[in-house]
Amino acid sequence: MKAKVHVTLKQGVLDPQGKAVQHALAALGFDGVNDVRQGKFIELELTETDPKKAETEVEAMCQKLLANMVIEDYRVDILEG
Amino acid sequence: MKAKVHVTLKQGVLDPQGKAVQHALAALGFDGVNDVRQGKFIELELTETDPKKAETEVEAMCQKLLANMVIEDYRVDILEG
Repeated sequence: MKAKVHVTLKQGVLDPQGKAVQHALAALGFDGVNDVRQGKFIELELTETDPKKAETEVEAMCQKLLANMVIEDYRVDILEG
Repeated sequence: MKAKVHVTLKQGVLDPQGKAVQHALAALGFDGVNDVRQGKFIELELTETDPKKAETEVEAMCQKLLANMVIEDYRVDILEG
């Protein structure tokens, strides 16, 4: 069973990496970019076959390791099969 | 108009960051993880209002800056409104 996890900075948290990308895009001539936010995208291959249990397990992984809960949000999507 | 970009390593390209996460998860007691791949998730806020033009523009950004086309794939999703 596969899980996809998006880890993004909470709204209001400064994103220097995103700002750097925005400035680099402007320097390359891409003017119409008002804002850039950069997050992480993590794909997990799990042995668990029950979607509910898999989701609970991946949420625990996010809270313990994958996301910094002080400044980041996460979203878990479980892909059946 | 918003665009969401996923940048992931091509299949077959070694992912040391993903492996490090996998080992860290195992060390925390999460045994049922067979593979971890880590990519980037980039959200862009664009002034462009035409979805087709926005998509073309973001694909150019991916090819020039956001993705390393030698080892990475990208996926662009344009969100209307």
